[in-house]
Amino acid sequence: MNRHDIALIGFGGVARALAETIRDRGADLTRELGFELRVVAITDLRLGSLMVADGIDLGAVLDMEPGDTFAGWHGGTAAPQNDYVIRNTTADIVVEATFTNPVDGEPAVSHVRAALESGKSVTTTNKGPVALAGAELNRIAEENGVRFEYEGSVVSGTPVLRFAEKTLAGLRINAVRGILNGTSNYVLGQMELGMTLEDAVAEAQGLGYAEADPTADIEGSDVQLKVVILANELLGAGMTTTDVQRRGIAGVTAADIVEAAARGRRWKLIGSAFRNASGGVTAAVEPVALPLSDPLAGINGPTNAVSFETDMLGTVTVSGPGAGRVETAFALLSDIVAIDAQLGAAVTA
Amino acid sequence: MNRHDIALIGFGGVARALAETIRDRGADLTRELGFELRVVAITDLRLGSLMVADGIDLGAVLDMEPGDTFAGWHGGTAAPQNDYVIRNTTADIVVEATFTNPVDGEPAVSHVRAALESGKSVTTTNKGPVALAGAELNRIAEENGVRFEYEGSVVSGTPVLRFAEKTLAGLRINAVRGILNGTSNYVLGQMELGMTLEDAVAEAQGLGYAEADPTADIEGSDVQLKVVILANELLGAGMTTTDVQRRGIAGVTAADIVEAAARGRRWKLIGSAFRNASGGVTAAVEPVALPLSDPLAGINGPTNAVSFETDMLGTVTVSGPGAGRVETAFALLSDIVAIDAQLGAAVTA
Repeated sequence: MNRHDIALIGFGGVARALAETIRDRGADLTRELGFELRVVAITDLRLGSLMVADGIDLGAVLDMEPGDTFAGWHGGTAAPQNDYVIRNTTADIVVEATFTNPVDGEPAVSHVRAALESGKSVTTTNKGPVALAGAELNRIAEENGVRFEYEGSVVSGTPVLRFAEKTLAGLRINAVRGILNGTSNYVLGQMELGMTLEDAVAEAQGLGYAEADPTADIEGSDVQLKVVILANELLGAGMTTTDVQRRGIAGVTAADIVEAAARGRRWKLIGSAFRNASGGVTAAVEPVALPLSDPLAGINGPTNAVSFETDMLGTVTVSGPGAGRVETAFALLSDIVAIDAQLGAAVTA
Repeated sequence: MNRHDIALIGFGGVARALAETIRDRGADLTRELGFELRVVAITDLRLGSLMVADGIDLGAVLDMEPGDTFAGWHGGTAAPQNDYVIRNTTADIVVEATFTNPVDGEPAVSHVRAALESGKSVTTTNKGPVALAGAELNRIAEENGVRFEYEGSVVSGTPVLRFAEKTLAGLRINAVRGILNGTSNYVLGQMELGMTLEDAVAEAQGLGYAEADPTADIEGSDVQLKVVILANELLGAGMTTTDVQRRGIAGVTAADIVEAAARGRRWKLIGSAFRNASGGVTAAVEPVALPLSDPLAGINGPTNAVSFETDMLGTVTVSGPGAGRVETAFALLSDIVAIDAQLGAAVTA
């Protein structure tokens, strides 16, 4: 049976959801996808490291009690030896699911670089490595004959990058515009119902949409990183974050919302990038009062959406979840499917 | 240079738009896609037939005066010898763009069968062959080592079938629901503004959305064929049209629309198919008063959309144009890209 061996670097909610999917639906997936998925390494700040070349018992890992570590397990240690595991695992695919510093993308960038340099393909849902070091990491992947895939770095598991690559080939994409942050979209919706921004943010936190520190959501810096990724991937912009003008939703007032509604419009936080008249790309994050006829105007709550403006097809829009641990785990799975389609299985028997 | 040679069977608006694209953007497409497109045969009821193995001068064909035929052209005749051309063309891809009888799918079914049997891949935007003979034609394609592609048979060039195939692999699709007919969606929107159904249909005809005979749009039989295709492709239903319950929009009254609006709802003509409790698939076409929170509720005018309900990702929706000659020509182009990805180029040099 064709097989991919996987190392999970970071074992938070998303990586755990992928492990649960492999445990619960592994046989179905093997039949549908034509290859088996086997986890051979896990590292995590709290759990430590575990390397088992002939396959980890995912049921045992998923049943660990709070406070347990891999110390004493066959192949295990209490120390989270990320770099050692990335370089020495027998896995052919490394799932980078740690965290990312929005300034330099670390430690995720170093994890991805180490994996690619040691000849492993990488999937990540971290924005940092893609937005801040995407060109370098793609070059290293190419030099090493492996793949760097990151569908989940924008709009979670909802296919946006792969939608463009796999279904729009032959079109010229002139612009891309999106609702790329569920928290700010939820907050604007609640403000339409009369809630203050502060109360709406608190409610979004209670519902699990917003981070403990919602600054990146409200001020637009989360969207800014995603716009860099979209502009570079879809329009070949070669941008960094400082090239994307940014204004968040903090300046949108109750009066603005009432006034927009009277004109048949809705405020949305829009990340956009378009080919400008001088042949370059202009990108921005800003609140926009969209007419109801805009395909993005009806996107509600934590849902995200991206509109592609194209030559032959006009505007095409994809909408779906922009967060969630199972939804984001699907982004990892879909990257693995794409790696398999490009490189074939590591093990064939 | 890698190359695909193409035969255009039928030279109406959509095939003409593809020819214009190849004439105007051929060099760009070759660079972007990695293969050249060359038209080596054209047949048409009014123009006759033209076969030129080393490539037709598309500029000359597109500049023909009304009433001109291919009689007297090198390789040309005034007779539209569809079957002869399909069997004897040097093309490796046949573009079936004639018309289709909604009862038996002819003559398109015979054209597709002849092309596949003679070892050519086929792309069509005709619903008939896919909805009425899809299983047989896919089997013939497989037996002959060629491809039968039909992205444009549902929602024009907006990627729906390929979206599911290429970006949702690994998910279980439990249901699919769509706004699949632009005319009826436009008419319902105008009725919301106070217009009668009859006046709205006349306006849609004036705008070019509705056919001279709008029965298939209003009564739902156009959507019924598309639901068969979605149910068979995405849910493996093995259905025929009689398995899809059908009710059009003729019974939706002005009072229904006012009453729905008062409840925050909008009437939409919804084609749907879902896995039922007994393991089969249930499919229907019917007007539904959708809550505004539904991703299909905000789809306006001639735009179409399809929502996929999945296990890991919840609901994902694609919206875009559901008609238009250039938009539909992109469906043909995207099928050719898919055929190339599967089979490689016919000519490599």
